Order: sequence, then C-alpha cells, then structure tokens
Amino acid sequence: MEIQPLEDRVVIKPVEGEEKTASGIVLPDTAKEKPMKGEVVAVGEGKWDESGKNRVPVDVKVGDIVIYGKYSGTEFKSDGEELLIVRASEILAKIG
Amino acid sequence: MEIQPLEDRVVIKPVEGEEKTASGIVLPDTAKEKPMKGEVVAVGEGKWDESGKNRVPVDVKVGDIVIYGKYSGTEFKSDGEELLIVRASEILAKIG
Amino acid sequence: MEIQPLEDRVVIKPVEGEEKTASGIVLPDTAKEKPMKGEVVAVGEGKWDESGKNRVPVDVKVGDIVIYGKYSGTEFKSDGEELLIVRASEILAKIG
Amino acid sequence: MEIQPLEDRVVIKPVEGEEKTASGIVLPDTAKEKPMKGEVVAVGEGKWDESGKNRVPVDVKVGDIVIYGKYSGTEFKSDGEELLIVRASEILAKIG
Amino acid sequence: MEIQPLEDRVVIKPVEGEEKTASGIVLPDTAKEKPMKGEVVAVGEGKWDESGKNRVPVDVKVGDIVIYGKYSGTEFKSDGEELLIVRASEILAKIG
Amino acid sequence: MEIQPLEDRVVIKPVEGEEKTASGIVLPDTAKEKPMKGEVVAVGEGKWDESGKNRVPVDVKVGDIVIYGKYSGTEFKSDGEELLIVRASEILAKIG
Amino acid sequence: MEIQPLEDRVVIKPVEGEEKTASGIVLPDTAKEKPMKGEVVAVGEGKWDESGKNRVPVDVKVGDIVIYGKYSGTEFKSDGEELLIVRASEILAKIG
Repeated sequence: MEIQPLEDRVVIKPVEGEEKTASGIVLPDTAKEKPMKGEVVAVGEGKWDESGKNRVPVDVKVGDIVIYGKYSGTEFKSDGEELLIVRASEILAKIG
Repeated sequence: MEIQPLEDRVVIKPVEGEEKTASGIVLPDTAKEKPMKGEVVAVGEGKWDESGKNRVPVDVKVGDIVIYGKYSGTEFKSDGEELLIVRASEILAKIG
Repeated sequence: MEIQPLEDRVVIKPVEGEEKTASGIVLPDTAKEKPMKGEVVAVGEGKWDESGKNRVPVDVKVGDIVIYGKYSGTEFKSDGEELLIVRASEILAKIG
Repeated sequence: MEIQPLEDRVVIKPVEGEEKTASGIVLPDTAKEKPMKGEVVAVGEGKWDESGKNRVPVDVKVGDIVIYGKYSGTEFKSDGEELLIVRASEILAKIG
Repeated sequence: MEIQPLEDRVVIKPVEGEEKTASGIVLPDTAKEKPMKGEVVAVGEGKWDESGKNRVPVDVKVGDIVIYGKYSGTEFKSDGEELLIVRASEILAKIG
Repeated sequence: MEIQPLEDRVVIKPVEGEEKTASGIVLPDTAKEKPMKGEVVAVGEGKWDESGKNRVPVDVKVGDIVIYGKYSGTEFKSDGEELLIVRASEILAKIG
Repeated sequence: MEIQPLEDRVVIKPVEGEEKTASGIVLPDTAKEKPMKGEVVAVGEGKWDESGKNRVPVDVKVGDIVIYGKYSGTEFKSDGEELLIVRASEILAKIG
C-alpha cells in the first residue's frame, strides 16, 4: 500500500510515549500548545506556484524526524499504523 | 449523463462502509475529523492562473482513489449514485 | 429586455420542482447544503486580471445546464421569470 | 455641481417605487436580499493595478441602468436627489 | 507647522455644520452611515507597490473637497483646528 | 546599547504629557482613538519584497517626529527610557 | 543534537529572570503585552518566494540577541533547555 499526499502535504508517523528522545528533545508538559514529534513517511510533490507552471519545493524528505503542532493535520490509520497528514508549512523543524 | 466539474473541482464517488480497505487503509473512529475515501469520477480543467491565460493543473485523475476531509464538498445524487464535488485542494492524498 | 452580468457573474434560470432530471441527476434531500440546478441565460465578460489588461475567461456559456449551491447568488424577477445572478466561481459543475 | 467618485466607485441614482420596469425587470419581495435598480450618473477612473502604473477599467458608463445589492454603498443627497456611491465590483448587472 | 501623512494617507479639514453646501451636496440624516465632507490639506506620497520601487499615485490633491465615511480615519487637533487623517482609499468622491 | 528593529519596524520615544506641542499639534481628548506623538530613534531596514531580492523602503528616518495610533506597537524600557516598537505602516504622519 | 527550523522559523533560547540586561534593556511590567528577550540558536533557510525558485532571506543569525512578543511561538525542551520556535517575522528587534 502506498500513500501519495497532494500539494505540500506530508504523511507523518508519530513517535509516541517517548519522554526523552535519542536526540535529547523532550517535549514539555506545559499549558502552551505542545509540539509533537514524528517521522516523515511520504511527501507531496509541492503546491503549484501562482503561474501553475512550477511546483514550490517541499522542505522535508522521507526519513526526516520533525516536530509539529499538537493540533496539526488529519489522522488516519493504514495497515494498523496511526498516521497523520499535515501541510509542510505546519512543520516547525527537523531534528537529528 | 456526464458531469463536468468547474475550475479545480473533482467529482468523487465515496467508498462507504468499508472498515478495512483493499489497500489496507482503515479510517479511524476518533474525536478528530475523520478522512473519507472515494474514487475520482470526474475532474475539472483547473483554475485559471492570475493572468487568466493558463490553467493550474489538477493533481488527480479519473480512477484515483483519494482520501478527503469528512466535511469537504457538496453532495448530490446522479443516476442513483451518491456523489460529492470537492475542490482538489481539499483532497489530502491519493492511495493505492 | 436584456441582462448583461458584470465581471464573472452569470444569470441562471433555475430548474425547479424536478425530482429526477432528464440527465439523471437527482438532488438529494439531506442535511448538507443541497445543490440546485439551472440553465445559464447570460454570462459576464469576465473579471479583469490583476494588470487590468486582460479578462479571465468564464468557464460556462449560455445554454449550459449547471449545478450550484442553494444559497449562492442574488434572486430577481425579469419578465415574470425568477432568475439568479451568481459568480461563475460559485458554480460547481456543468451537466448534460 | 459635479461628483467625481474615486477608484472604481460609481454614483447611482436609484430608481424607486417602480414595481414593473420598462425593461420588464421586477424586483421580488422575498426573504433573500433584493437587488435594487438605478442609473449610473458618474464613474470613477478605476483602481490602480498593483504596479501603480495602470488603472483597471470600470465596466459601467454614465447612463447605464444597473442592478445592485440592497445594502451596497453609501447614500448621500445632492441638489435634492438621493444618490448612492458603490464600488463597481458590487454592481451585479447592466440591464436594458 | 507642517503635517506630512505617510503612504496613501490624507489630512482632511472637515466641513462641519453645513446643511446645504455651496456645491449643493446635502448630507442626509438617515439610518445608513452618513458621509462627511472636508477639504484635503495634506497628501501622502503614496504606498509603495509590491516591488518597493514605485509608489502608487494618490487620487486627491491639496484643495480638493471630498466626501468620506463618518467613521473613517483618526482625528487630531493642530493649531486649534480639528483635522482627520484617512487613507485615500477610504475617500468616496471628490466634489466641486 | 543599540536596538535594530526588524523589517519595517521603527523604535519610537513617545513624547508624553505635552498638551500643546512646539509644532502646534494638540492631541484631542475625545471618544475616538487618540493619536500619540513621538520621536523616531531607530528604523528597520524594510520588509523584503515578494521576490525576496529587494527591501521596500521605510518612509521615516531617525529624528522624525511622528504621530501614531494609541494602541499601536509594543512597549519596552531601555536604559530607563520607555520606548515603543511599531511597524512603519502604522505611523500616520510626520510632523514638524 | 541539532534542530533545523523550517521556512523562516528561528529557535530562540529565552533569557529569563533578568531584570536589567547587560545591554541596558529592561522589559517593563505593565498591562500591555511585554516583549521577551532571547538568543537565536538556530535559523531556518527562509520561506520560498511565490515562484518557488528563491528563498526570502531571514533577518537574524545565530548569536543575535532578539526581543519578541510574549505569546509568540511554540515552546519545547531540548537537552534540558527550554527553547522556543518563532517565525522571524514575529521578532521585533535585535539588540546589542
């Protein structure tokens, strides 16, 4: 099974229940919106620019570990995995 | 009978009541907005770019299986089939 | 009497009380916004592009049968006929 | 006395109390916003395009009979006449 | 003392308490927002276009009599005079 | 100590408690939002234009006396002075 | 561990509990939103311009001391440090 996100969308496999990550990032338990962490498993081809002739590049690639806002995107389940589709513009940073 | 969606709109035939799909996608039953799945049965020619001289390409084609937000688009019935018209920008991903 | 809609506006003569249309489209009686059907009787010349030098083409022509959102546009009566003015961007699809 | 509307604004002299017009347009008495009818008595030079070098043409001229939304524009009185200033983009159609 | 408005802003000296003006404009006493009248006493150089290389021209000049929305702009007092700063895009028309 | 505002932001040292200014501007005590007066003490380099290749010029310079909306900007204190950072687009006019 | 913010985002290490800074900036304790101070520790490559061919430069660099709105950005913890990701456009000024 393969998922091809459209435009600048990205499929992310969330990394759950991990208090202290390998890279040392700990996501805080505060009142502010907490960012989540996950691995990019599929990347769209990018949005068309305003002329409709070129696509705007997407700044992440498959395998990147990224952090993103807790309420970003749309969840779905594929082959038993909980996945998330978000727009790349909602991804805050790559870590590693 | 033929339906020609305008601009970047797409006609989708929803795939209903399918808990586990052939491709392995299971749409979750959670509090978050659940994506729906369907087959593209007609595609618009695309929106005009800002100069009005070229159309911006539409990223799906007839026959594509797509997932989209539950509350996207407008429903209608044609020859007994429940169909949906959505803008291509509201389609999250192609699967297959 | 003649009506010339401005910009990308279109005059539509609604097709009313028709449960099952010639083309087989049946508009559903559900909770979601129901699309309406009508015939295009006049078409604007199109909006100016951002340079003000060219008009963006309008994607429908007189005689097209179209579907559009129930709450789209402005109603008026001309020579005893109930008509509607909508922007072409609010028209969902052509059928036939 | 002369009024020169700015940008894409147009001065309209409303046609009031006319149930059935010469051209056959009757404005309905329904729950939806009713369009009004009037004669264009002055037209602005047009808005500047985004470069500030050219003006975008205005699609009506003095003498045109137009229909427009009931709540469009700003009323004022000049030499005893009730007039209205609206942006041309708010004018629905020319009739005649 | 001199006031130089920025961008497309204009300084207006309101004409108050004048029921019937020299030019014959009478501003109505109705429920709708009433336009006000004043004389332009200073004009900005214009907003930069999107390239930041040219300014978009301002459509009024010092000495113009203009009408504008009652709630437009910011009032201030200079040398005992009540003045108003509004953006030129909020000025409805020149009269005279 | 030096403050370099970013984009089109400007640092202003407010002129307080001055009922009648040297230039003759008196800021009124009315119900409408009252403009404030201050001296520009630092100016940003300007926002990038949409291509990201040129900056849009900022229309004020250090030493200018400006008026601005009462609720504009963000206050901070530097070396005992109360200062304000506002975007240049929020500055109404230069006076002097 | 390394964090690479996306687009025009910047990672900031807040400077906390510092009433009077080395550079003399004291952040006030008033009713208005108070700006915060911090050190830039990572900078994104910039947003793509509208053509998707060039990136718009980011106006800060690693090591810059910046002030920013109290409610800007998203907090996270990395290697025991409280960090913040904000868009560069939300940074008010560089100080030093």
